[in-house]
This record gives sequence, C-alpha cells and structure tokens, in this order.
Amino acid sequence: MSPDALTPAEFAALHRAAELAEYGAATALPNPVVGCVLLAPGGWTVGEGYHRRPGGPHAEVAALTAAGPLARGGTAVVSLEPCNHTGRTGPCSQALIAAGVSRVIVAVRDPWPPAAGGVDHLRQAGVQVVDLPSLAGQDPAAAAAVEHAQDVNRVWLAAMRHGRPFVTWKVGMTIDGRVAAADATSRWITSPQSRADVHALRARVDTIMVGVGTVLDDDPALTVRDDQGEPVGRQPLRVVIDSSGRTPAQARVLDDAAPTWLATAESAGTGADGRVDLAAVLAELWRRGRRHVLLEGGPHLAASFLDAGLVDEVVAYVAPTLLGAGPSALSGGAVGTLSDAHAAELVDLTRFGPDVRLRYRIGARA
Amino acid sequence: MSPDALTPAEFAALHRAAELAEYGAATALPNPVVGCVLLAPGGWTVGEGYHRRPGGPHAEVAALTAAGPLARGGTAVVSLEPCNHTGRTGPCSQALIAAGVSRVIVAVRDPWPPAAGGVDHLRQAGVQVVDLPSLAGQDPAAAAAVEHAQDVNRVWLAAMRHGRPFVTWKVGMTIDGRVAAADATSRWITSPQSRADVHALRARVDTIMVGVGTVLDDDPALTVRDDQGEPVGRQPLRVVIDSSGRTPAQARVLDDAAPTWLATAESAGTGADGRVDLAAVLAELWRRGRRHVLLEGGPHLAASFLDAGLVDEVVAYVAPTLLGAGPSALSGGAVGTLSDAHAAELVDLTRFGPDVRLRYRIGARA
Ligand SMILES: NC(=O)c1ccc[n+]([C@@H]2O[C@H](COP(=O)([O-])OP(=O)(O)OC[C@H]3O[C@@H](n4cnc5c(N)ncnc54)[C@H](OP(=O)(O)O)[C@@H]3O)[C@@H](O)[C@H]2O)c1
Ligand SMILES: NC(=O)c1ccc[n+]([C@@H]2O[C@H](COP(=O)([O-])OP(=O)(O)OC[C@H]3O[C@@H](n4cnc5c(N)ncnc54)[C@H](OP(=O)(O)O)[C@@H]3O)[C@@H](O)[C@H]2O)c1
Ligand SMILES: [Zn+2]
Ligand SMILES: [Zn+2]
Repeated sequence: MSPDALTPAEFAALHRAAELAEYGAATALPNPVVGCVLLAPGGWTVGEGYHRRPGGPHAEVAALTAAGPLARGGTAVVSLEPCNHTGRTGPCSQALIAAGVSRVIVAVRDPWPPAAGGVDHLRQAGVQVVDLPSLAGQDPAAAAAVEHAQDVNRVWLAAMRHGRPFVTWKVGMTIDGRVAAADATSRWITSPQSRADVHALRARVDTIMVGVGTVLDDDPALTVRDDQGEPVGRQPLRVVIDSSGRTPAQARVLDDAAPTWLATAESAGTGADGRVDLAAVLAELWRRGRRHVLLEGGPHLAASFLDAGLVDEVVAYVAPTLLGAGPSALSGGAVGTLSDAHAAELVDLTRFGPDVRLRYRIGARA
Repeated sequence: MSPDALTPAEFAALHRAAELAEYGAATALPNPVVGCVLLAPGGWTVGEGYHRRPGGPHAEVAALTAAGPLARGGTAVVSLEPCNHTGRTGPCSQALIAAGVSRVIVAVRDPWPPAAGGVDHLRQAGVQVVDLPSLAGQDPAAAAAVEHAQDVNRVWLAAMRHGRPFVTWKVGMTIDGRVAAADATSRWITSPQSRADVHALRARVDTIMVGVGTVLDDDPALTVRDDQGEPVGRQPLRVVIDSSGRTPAQARVLDDAAPTWLATAESAGTGADGRVDLAAVLAELWRRGRRHVLLEGGPHLAASFLDAGLVDEVVAYVAPTLLGAGPSALSGGAVGTLSDAHAAELVDLTRFGPDVRLRYRIGARA
C-alpha cells in the first residue's frame, strides 16, 4: 500500500474533522474554522479538537491535549494545513512533531502565506504527510473529503482568495420574488422558523449590511436576537450604505445594541456614479478585520453588489405566498438580456416550516 | 376485530391502488383516475387495474378481468368509489357483485351525483363496505391512504367540487422571480431537464392557456413535444386570452399541430373591466368537457387568474440565475398590502438538473 493510500478510518476522520470545524463557525472569525482528529496507530480516535475563537487553542492543540500520550505514533487528520507561524499561540506543526505524531492528513492547504508552510515543516521533521487535494483528481472519496473541508471553510477561504470579506446576500421573498407589498409592508414575509434561521445566520457573520432605503422603509435593528427578541451574544458590526447620510438620528440601527458604521460618500468614497463605492467599503471592512458580510438588502443595493461581482453566496427564503405587485428581490440591476444573467449554483435546499431556504454559490468554487 | 379494521395487506393495497390510478393521469381526462387491487381472502394480490382512458374499462373491471375466478370471496381495494351508473361501460358496483367479491374498501367517495351510489348498491347486495374517510379521523394510517388517493385525483376532485376545470399555473423563473430579461429575452430561462418536465406536465392536461401578451412576445407553439422537438401523442386544446383579437394570423399557436380557441371579448364575454371574463372562459371549457388547464402565463394573465381565485396549483421552476430587471412572474395584481397576499401551501420540492421545482396548492384541500 502506498503511504498516500487512506484507510476507511482515515476517511471517516476527515469528515469528522470538517464537522468539528463547523462548531467554530459562529466564533472563529476572523480566523478560519479548523477541526482535527487524532487516530491511534490501530485506527481508533484518541482525541478531537476544533478552533473555537481567536486567541484560543488551535484545533490541533485541542486534540493533542485531549489525546495526551496516546497521540505518539498516531495520525493527525486536519481540515486545514497546520499553521507554521507563531501568532497568539505557537505553531501547530511544531506541536504535532513534539507530540510524536508520525502521519498527518491535510484536507486543504492554507492559502495565507504567513501561516502556510506547515506541511513542509512536518516533512522536514520526518513526518509522513498526505496532501489530500493532490489525490482528489484520481480518488472520488478524497475529492469528497476535500469538498467537505472546503465547504465548511468557504467563507474564510474565499475571503483569503479575494482579499475582501465573503458576502452572503440573504433575502426573504414570496413565490413571485417580491420582498414587500405595493404599500411597502414587509413584516413578516417569512415564517418564524425562517426568521430564527436568519438569526442563526447573523450569529455566524461579523458584519450585517443594508442600504439606506431599507433603513428608511423598515427601520430594522440588525441585531442577533433570541426567540424572545432579546439580543444575544457577540453582535456583528452594522453597516448602512448611505451616500448622503439620510439615516435618521433616531433609527434603530444607531442604537447602542451593537456598533454601526454609516458608510457615506465621505467616509467610504464614491464610484463613478457618485454613490458609495462598494468595493471600497469591503476593502475598509477587510482592513478592520471583517471577513463575512451578511448583505440583507434592499433590492437596489443587492443589485449593485451583484453587478459589481461582489456576492459569493445567496440565501433565499421563499414564503408560500403570492403578491403580484411590490418591489422585487433585486432591482435596478444592469443586466439587460438573458445571456448576461448572473449564474449561480444550487448547493442546498431545506424546508423551514412552511418556507423553503435555497442556498446558491456564485462564482468560482473554493 | 371490527369489520372496519384494515389488515397491513389492505393498507399496502390502498397505496398501490393510488399508484395504479396515477398511471392514467395523462389519458383519463375528463374521467377521474382510478386504481383497483383485488386481494384473495388470504391477503395476496390476485388482480390489479386502472382506468386508462374514457370509453376504456374502469379500474375495477380491469382488475376483475385479471383476477378471473380468483376474485370470488376476496376484497376489492379502490382509490375511488365504484360507479353505479351505466355510461359507456356497465356499473362497476354490479360487476363486483357479479364476481362474488365479498368486501370493498373505498378510499374516496365519488362527488359526482350520477356516478355515486356504488357504496349503497354494494351494501344492499350484502357486500361488506369499508368507507375509509369515515375512519380517517381516528386512524392516521387511514388518513394517509385517503390523502394519497385524493392527491392523485386532485385535478378531477377539485374540478367536480368547483364545477370548473382545475387550473395549474406553471412558471419558469430566475431566483429573483423574473420570467424574462429587460429586453424581453426569455428562451431559455430554465434547464433542458425542467423543460422536459414541462412537456410531461402538458401531456397530462387537456388545455394549455396563455395571454395574448405572451403570444406577441414569445410566439410559443404550446404543443407536447419529445426530446427531438417533435409533437407527440394527444395534443391539448390551446387557448389564447385575447380581448380584441390581436393574435397574428401567422402565430404558431394557430398552426394545425393542435386545435386552438382564441378567447376574445366576443367569443368568451367580458368582465367589468372590458377584458375577457376568465370565469366565463373556464365555464365554456367545462361545457366542452375540459377538466385541467395548464396556465402558462404571462404575468398579467396569471395575476388576474389569482386575483379571481381561479388558480388551484402553482408549479414554479426556479433557475439558478439572477437578473435584477425584467418582468416578474406575476404582475399587475390587485393585492396592495402584505396581509392580503394569496396564501399557498408547499406540497413538493424536486430538483430538475440545476433547477428546483416547487409545487404549491392554493385554496382548500380536496
Ligand atoms: N424581504 C427582505 O428580505 C427585504 C430586505 C431588505 C429590504 N427589503 C425591502 O426593500 C425595500 C427597500 O429597498 P431599496 O432597494 O429601496 O433600498 P436599499 O437597497 O436598501 O438602499 C438603496 C439605497 O442605497 C444607497 N446606495 C449608496 N450607494 C449605493 C450603491 N453603490 N448601489 C446601490 N445603492 C446605493 C442609495 O441611496 P443614497 O444614494 O441616498 O445613498 C440607494 O437608494 C423596502 O420595501 C424593504 O421592505 C426587503
Ligand atoms: N418564463 C415563463 O414561464 C413565462 C411564461 C409566459 C410569459 N412569459 C413572459 O411574460 C411576458 C408576457 O406577459 P404579459 O404579462 O405581458 O402578457 P400575458 O399575461 O401573456 O397577456 C396579458 C394580456 O392578456 C389580455 N387579457 C385579456 N383578458 C385579460 C384578463 N382578464 N386579465 C389579464 N389579461 C387579460 C390582455 O390583453 P388584451 O386586453 O389585448 O386582451 C393583457 O394585456 C413576456 O416577456 C414573456 O416572455 C414568461
Ligand atoms: Zn495552528
Ligand atoms: Zn366504474
């Protein structure tokens, strides 16, 4: 058997590592999510760990702590390449070598230059390293494990690749694609089940954004709230795209439940059309360490984001109602003919009470 | 055990009878779809049948023919009450009695007065009859079997209840609910897989309808075609809603591939707004024996149908694309505020290639 061949226990551990990584999804930003499973030479699990929050232990260290001396001679299965730099914690490649791990399976290579190099460091120390992406071309099981690890980390990986925050556009609409009725009533288009899922989504991002049109029409709070409507946990930064500062001083988005940035022409810069430059807004958020923007509309701002190629993911909640009038989910876009439509790819389909949630990926795969 | 208690074999036969009924879906109109399973006293199946086409044998007769003498002393499980009238074929209740069947399980009672009475006739002849809907309140398994039998026959049952054809509104749209781009390009919004399903849907109806706006913009053929684009099988009647006869003489819908009715103000009558009276159109189709209209848009005609309460079902194909401009799936509707939105109920969710098909029921259950 080639040293690169994986055992069934190792494949199972790869999917488990991706699952573990996901536990950090609501807290790891601006760091990636990472999961690690340690297997004894016999194939059984002797330790598991994931990266919970910046400054906290990395997944590998958490798993090594759990395994103690049982890690010696075993295999570490990681959803992302072990880091090779000393940040707030020491390099994980060093920790794995020190614990006597003899084989490391890496589902995804680290695209961030300062942290990359873990694989090389491990190999120099005599550890056998399996670089899974290099096997994915010939082995469908390896490809599935890579895909799983990429998908749980899609936000961080795409942010690194593009050098800007990942943008999820979320919309709640009727079957005919309306986000409000003709008289601008829009509470509540979707069901309580969908709205609870939106709060779970908000809890996973570090930034929530809307256009000033939505603030003026709906006066949303844009906070993460529980079933009783009480704010819970870490609150994302709120951003209002508002060229000339039309947000009223008494708007909810300016209360003290969370920090807010009014991105005006002055504070963010303008594009050729004199309106706020959206790429400049994302660049500024990136500088402030923000990695995941939940764009909650409205239709005009979302269309500008799409036309600028700045949307990575669409999450649409479709309520079982029909209006026949009122604003559409997207409007004022620059697409004039069908062959220029923005292409997406359906990645998930889930029922939430009476509604359906459709999740689409836009642009290249991770 | 009460004579009404059902055995597991009888429950299985009920679902099988509903499946058999569905085989007739593309050909039975204007008749209902019906399936029948004959069980020997020991519980095994000795005959199956379904109603394939008007003038052809009823499901019970088909099953009795298959079972021959093995039907004697057995149980007939039927998705719809056996008929009691002599139409183009003799009454099925009489045929079951003559064959010596001793027990009949009926999933749905016949709402059509001339055919109803089969249950009474059977009881008078000493046959034990189980009327499943009467058990559905206490028995979830009975309720599920009734629901299954109602769902396969939903078109015919609703048509009988309302005294007008059942109306399925079908639409192909982008994620943001657009049915065409700003320049009116609309071929092809959805995938080949979805379009093949639309032809399967067309093959199941007896009438296909559009507004004159769609004829002028798209010049559709509105025929049932195979993968090679060749017309196949029985073609539904084509109806164009066209108040003042604007359909061009050379429009495809006027070719000889299928019959067409131009429903004008003159030939169909007008409503208060001077446009074609849609209820009158359905009444005329009913008089002509039509039971299932596939309404293929466009947005203005569909909104009028919905506002008039004349849509029973929505089938929406959602393509993984975004436009941001162009006509919405429904437009010009009378609904002004969110609380007046038309309510629907999601009944099915299926992927067709890259697209999703959402099926909704509107209005009361059968
Ligand atoms: N159901 C839902 O999920 C949902 C979510 C949100 C909103 N809505 C509905 O959507 C409606 C409001 O949406 P809207 O489209 O009118 O407003 P919007 O998209 O929230 O805001 C648009 C405004 O953003 C400002 N802006 C600045 N830079 C921009 C740029 N580069 N591109 C685009 N916009 C830029 C512009 O105003 P300035 O020029 O003054 O800056 C523009 O008028 C309401 O009816 C609301 O209920 C529904
Ligand atoms: N993607 C899809 O599934 C799909 C399907 C169909 C159409 N489309 C698109 O939809 C667009 C055309 O739709 P449309 O809304 O303009 O036209 P439409 O709904 O097909 O037809 C509307 C016309 O029907 C006539 N009409 C007569 N009585 C009516 C009544 N009671 N209620 C409503 N209309 C009545 C009216 O013209 P008169 O007053 O002259 O009678 C009215 O202008 C095209 O862009 C086409 O590509 C897309
Ligand atoms: Zn590390
Ligand atoms: Zn019959």
